[in-house]
Amino acid sequence: MLDINSIETAFARIRHNKVFELFVISIILFSALVIGVKTYDLPQWLITILPWLDHGVTLFFLIELSIRFIGEPEKRKFFRNPWNLFDTLIVVVSLIPVEDSELALIGRLIRIFRVLRMVSMIPELRLLLNSLIRALPQLGYVVLLMFIIFYIYAAAGSSFFAPINEKLWGDISIAMLTLFRVMTFEDWTDVMYETMEIHPFSWLFYLSFIFLTTFAFLNMVIGIVVNVMENEHSAAEKQKNLEQGIPTISDLQREIRELKQLIVENRSSSETTVINSRVK
Amino acid sequence: MLDINSIETAFARIRHNKVFELFVISIILFSALVIGVKTYDLPQWLITILPWLDHGVTLFFLIELSIRFIGEPEKRKFFRNPWNLFDTLIVVVSLIPVEDSELALIGRLIRIFRVLRMVSMIPELRLLLNSLIRALPQLGYVVLLMFIIFYIYAAAGSSFFAPINEKLWGDISIAMLTLFRVMTFEDWTDVMYETMEIHPFSWLFYLSFIFLTTFAFLNMVIGIVVNVMENEHSAAEKQKNLEQGIPTISDLQREIRELKQLIVENRSSSETTVINSRVK
Amino acid sequence: MLDINSIETAFARIRHNKVFELFVISIILFSALVIGVKTYDLPQWLITILPWLDHGVTLFFLIELSIRFIGEPEKRKFFRNPWNLFDTLIVVVSLIPVEDSELALIGRLIRIFRVLRMVSMIPELRLLLNSLIRALPQLGYVVLLMFIIFYIYAAAGSSFFAPINEKLWGDISIAMLTLFRVMTFEDWTDVMYETMEIHPFSWLFYLSFIFLTTFAFLNMVIGIVVNVMENEHSAAEKQKNLEQGIPTISDLQREIRELKQLIVENRSSSETTVINSRVK
Amino acid sequence: MLDINSIETAFARIRHNKVFELFVISIILFSALVIGVKTYDLPQWLITILPWLDHGVTLFFLIELSIRFIGEPEKRKFFRNPWNLFDTLIVVVSLIPVEDSELALIGRLIRIFRVLRMVSMIPELRLLLNSLIRALPQLGYVVLLMFIIFYIYAAAGSSFFAPINEKLWGDISIAMLTLFRVMTFEDWTDVMYETMEIHPFSWLFYLSFIFLTTFAFLNMVIGIVVNVMENEHSAAEKQKNLEQGIPTISDLQREIRELKQLIVENRSSSETTVINSRVK
Repeated sequence: MLDINSIETAFARIRHNKVFELFVISIILFSALVIGVKTYDLPQWLITILPWLDHGVTLFFLIELSIRFIGEPEKRKFFRNPWNLFDTLIVVVSLIPVEDSELALIGRLIRIFRVLRMVSMIPELRLLLNSLIRALPQLGYVVLLMFIIFYIYAAAGSSFFAPINEKLWGDISIAMLTLFRVMTFEDWTDVMYETMEIHPFSWLFYLSFIFLTTFAFLNMVIGIVVNVMENEHSAAEKQKNLEQGIPTISDLQREIRELKQLIVENRSSSETTVINSRVK
Repeated sequence: MLDINSIETAFARIRHNKVFELFVISIILFSALVIGVKTYDLPQWLITILPWLDHGVTLFFLIELSIRFIGEPEKRKFFRNPWNLFDTLIVVVSLIPVEDSELALIGRLIRIFRVLRMVSMIPELRLLLNSLIRALPQLGYVVLLMFIIFYIYAAAGSSFFAPINEKLWGDISIAMLTLFRVMTFEDWTDVMYETMEIHPFSWLFYLSFIFLTTFAFLNMVIGIVVNVMENEHSAAEKQKNLEQGIPTISDLQREIRELKQLIVENRSSSETTVINSRVK
Repeated sequence: MLDINSIETAFARIRHNKVFELFVISIILFSALVIGVKTYDLPQWLITILPWLDHGVTLFFLIELSIRFIGEPEKRKFFRNPWNLFDTLIVVVSLIPVEDSELALIGRLIRIFRVLRMVSMIPELRLLLNSLIRALPQLGYVVLLMFIIFYIYAAAGSSFFAPINEKLWGDISIAMLTLFRVMTFEDWTDVMYETMEIHPFSWLFYLSFIFLTTFAFLNMVIGIVVNVMENEHSAAEKQKNLEQGIPTISDLQREIRELKQLIVENRSSSETTVINSRVK
Repeated sequence: MLDINSIETAFARIRHNKVFELFVISIILFSALVIGVKTYDLPQWLITILPWLDHGVTLFFLIELSIRFIGEPEKRKFFRNPWNLFDTLIVVVSLIPVEDSELALIGRLIRIFRVLRMVSMIPELRLLLNSLIRALPQLGYVVLLMFIIFYIYAAAGSSFFAPINEKLWGDISIAMLTLFRVMTFEDWTDVMYETMEIHPFSWLFYLSFIFLTTFAFLNMVIGIVVNVMENEHSAAEKQKNLEQGIPTISDLQREIRELKQLIVENRSSSETTVINSRVK
């Protein structure tokens, strides 16, 4: 029992060691380099070595994960952390042998995703990604509205323009891709001029779509900006007041009430003494 | 009389039922799916079924609208709600038989617009669209200014460049479309290089146009952001003060005045008592 | 003397008359329409009529300007208003006969600029344009910095890439136009791929340019936003306090000092009375 | 000793002289013009003169730098200023003879960079550039995240799409350039349509990339805006309070406490006098 605990403590110490963390990050960087190097034309000896380097990285990741897992005092909490889950998934899938040509594709993808471990290792990046993800739900309804706009225009576009250009307006999903292209202003006039030859007023379709989506997009951005600033502002104000001991209006109100209390007491006591003196 | 009232109450209960609302939303989703599916190449049996599904959706919408109308205690208020008007319009136009090839186009469009009923059903989307629409009028004068800029440049463009490219500068409306294209930076240099061969200084025309519209657009966006933030900020402040009982500076002023009143009273009473005591 | 004054008063009354203003605006709209109509293919009778309509509009503008000038109590102030100067310039240049084919071009341009009188007539547009113009000077140094960046890159571009494509990099002014094109992302990769064939590292040139200008542009926009909001915020706060009679912290301070004064007086008077009573 | 000091003072006076500064700026402008003029086709006599003008500018810059250096009271501080270092570097490299055709390229670049001395001479531009540079570090982690996204997508892109188009996806660095092109929306659909013919679902690759980078970019911009505004706001508030003598809530609190002190004293003194009067 004591033995396991001491191992746990030792591993926990390794895990939180700065040198160990830097070493893990450099191995991740190395694996990223290996992935990048593979895309170039390589001499024969490097092609022979590369798979071994890959296996080495996989092995290292397995050891590192084991150390992190054993070093965790509460084993259950380990898998509640989504980053640990992500790391485990990457390591487990890397262990599956993928010599088959079809699975090799997935194997390659998994190796590329290893670079994302960079995010799970550097706390600042983790924080950044968390804040990005936390900003997503508040976009929910705007994205839904955007999707409805896209769907309606794609349905209209594919039923009217399909005979003109099968490649752009063939079915509703292709039409949505074409509309996304129009939204990014990428050669959208070519798409428009083509349909304007048959339907001369189809520029209304494109312009109204551009106005609607631009307006909705702007509104979304503004919404996020306003939200972020409100939060930052109130958080900053609260902290400023707390840290620097600057009084709030509520503090002032309390002090004024104490004053009033004092005066009221003052008066009654003064009256009493006067009365007393009179009585005497 | 009682009978009608009880029907009204029953229908009002159905109408506000969460399950009923979800059912209506799923029917709208289903009708959206039907519209999307139609744009693909379909087997014969599905083509035979689809019109019946369409009729079914129309019938369902008619029933749903009737329930909503009957369930409304004040019939007049029903049509004051623009969303109810929109729903009624969609249902009524759907009921018109459109076998004619010319009207079939409009029929198809109406069926597509049914997807917009999604917005009229989900309160959050209705709120979002309302806020979008409410932001429009404040854009009024900027849009007018933009239009004047477009009109002037289009008039100049079509009178100078029409002989160079009839397709882009033929008349003032086509020139405005071309200018919108220039504003979105879509192959605008092709348009410019063409006219620069005849009028070497025509780059001034394009660059000044781009600067003016970008500047006006930026100003518009900034105007909206500022406006939205002002509103949000003051609304948030008011609510914060109200909800959490945080006093305002006005509250403080009132309390200080009460204090002054107390002191003044204090003094006069003290004087009186002293005078009294002296008199005695 | 009285006669001239009465004419002045009468004309001033016409000038500020809402109906007269609306009539002027509709004539401006009409002249804008005439300009627009000219760009289309027209029947012969309309081509005969149009110059007469043009002359009519010029005459009307002359009369309107005279009324405005005579109706102005202080003649000197009239030309201090830049909008009046602009109107006068438009009218004066319209009166010059331009039958000559070379001057006809300028005559057409002047007629187009008449539409800008729309801005000088509608106060809201005048306000908007004023605020746009007022925002310009604060951009001064950013624009200068941008110009320096453009100049340096254009000088480098035209000395290295001129042999590759004379049309894009021929001399420094053409190079600056090409760089503006790159800045708007308009087919910038075509420009880049061409030079990368000779100078493989020229992507550094384009990417650094895009980063620098995007960053400077962003900074400019943010600077304006911050500036506008600061102004709006402080202006809104001041007006809010003034209009609604909401007290400021300074008001509170004054009231508290009055209180202190009262208490001090109170004490001394109380002491005096007590002393008096004692003395007696 | 006195002699050197008097020279130092004289040179310091020249250095801070407004006329001298304007003269230096006009020489920089002149050297910029010389660089610009060189890119045009020139007559023979100008081509003969230009190198001499170049040498003249170099000589002038050398003299000007010497004056600035001698006029500096503390010689060590001179090279701590990065702008002085930049100026010295430009002058020193200009003095190296570059007749060799290979080095001539660098010589030309150095001459172009002289225009940047404009920034080192005008304090407002120096301030602007400083604020731009100061904004960079806070972008650090967002840029790192962006780079990781680019790297992962480039690795995936070059391993799947390299056989389709060697020119766009040949190796990881070319793929990153292609992805930057996609991010600027420059003919990105051409890139996509090409790969969609082999991998029909590759639109997912492009759309997810566009969403991720747009979202990260937006977040970065918003982050900077919020940061800048917070700083500006608190700085403006502090200065406003200081300059205009507007009291803070803390000032009010202090005054209220003084009041309380007064009242407490008042009461005790009043009691004392009353007691005294009673005693007597």
